[in-house]
Amino acid sequence: MKYCNQCGQTVALSVPDGDHKPRYVCMSCGMIHYQNPLIVAGCVPEHDGRILLCKRAIEPRYGFWTVPAGFMELDESLPAAAARETLEEACAEVEIGAMIASVDVLQARQVHFFFAAKLPVAEFAAGPESLEVELVTPDSIPWDDLAFPSVRIAVEQYLRNKASGRDDLIVCEAPRRKLL
Amino acid sequence: MKYCNQCGQTVALSVPDGDHKPRYVCMSCGMIHYQNPLIVAGCVPEHDGRILLCKRAIEPRYGFWTVPAGFMELDESLPAAAARETLEEACAEVEIGAMIASVDVLQARQVHFFFAAKLPVAEFAAGPESLEVELVTPDSIPWDDLAFPSVRIAVEQYLRNKASGRDDLIVCEAPRRKLL
Repeated sequence: MKYCNQCGQTVALSVPDGDHKPRYVCMSCGMIHYQNPLIVAGCVPEHDGRILLCKRAIEPRYGFWTVPAGFMELDESLPAAAARETLEEACAEVEIGAMIASVDVLQARQVHFFFAAKLPVAEFAAGPESLEVELVTPDSIPWDDLAFPSVRIAVEQYLRNKASGRDDLIVCEAPRRKLL
Repeated sequence: MKYCNQCGQTVALSVPDGDHKPRYVCMSCGMIHYQNPLIVAGCVPEHDGRILLCKRAIEPRYGFWTVPAGFMELDESLPAAAARETLEEACAEVEIGAMIASVDVLQARQVHFFFAAKLPVAEFAAGPESLEVELVTPDSIPWDDLAFPSVRIAVEQYLRNKASGRDDLIVCEAPRRKLL
């Protein structure tokens, strides 16, 4: 951030009175520009014991597999965001269930929230951000080709809940990825 | 938003190619400035059957009661944010437990997440954002003087879980407040 989005003048990092962290502060109008983590909302859609996965057609992690997920927008709820992302990425209409994973991804400045979901009808297709979309059985999940650690955490929690018959939520931090 | 924070030139609302919503787009460098909901993290701290509440010393809702909560920062996890806010607002060190409420507050463009928490030692004091801090029994919670609907939802869920012996999570939208 270099300029104030309210007045167009330059910003500089400084610690405002009563604060404890450096913020971008406008040198002209004094506006403080806070930066906060972004929310990613997604779900693990199931149909008849199989899970819906999307092969990413965009960076980062082009060609790797994910469950439907993306940035939450204004004017929508967290479950609605997860359903919208599923419609956009997999052209699939799901019923959102319990929240099963809350994953802090500190490196990316994001928090990822995943819900269990039902795909009542096996109708789906690749949206513009997907190369392909597939229903896979638990024993054919491409664990080594998943796009992000949070996706693995969500799918593992889904399977754990399926085995236990519960709707448990896991709250954890994603392991840091090496920056090459 | 009026100016691009990258180049300082003016922005205008327009729908980028392949998008479906108007965004602030820089007329000069083309940068798209997305706007997303902010995360508020809080907790319901309990000590010996009583709950820790703070009387707000800041707007909005000056003088009303809340559980410790505030905006999540970069470089911290969601549970760490809830613990930090408790330290700042109530000078209290808590052990964060299960997530018990995820409340979409569409009007405020926020999502509020609350955790159960233990206050092992009854040591607390009003931080700069609090007028006073008190441990209250469940039957003396000032329901009519709570600051926000999400606070009521979190405290109610805490008491419900306490009664059931479970750690259930409620996911819901806050009722819209009338804008006077």
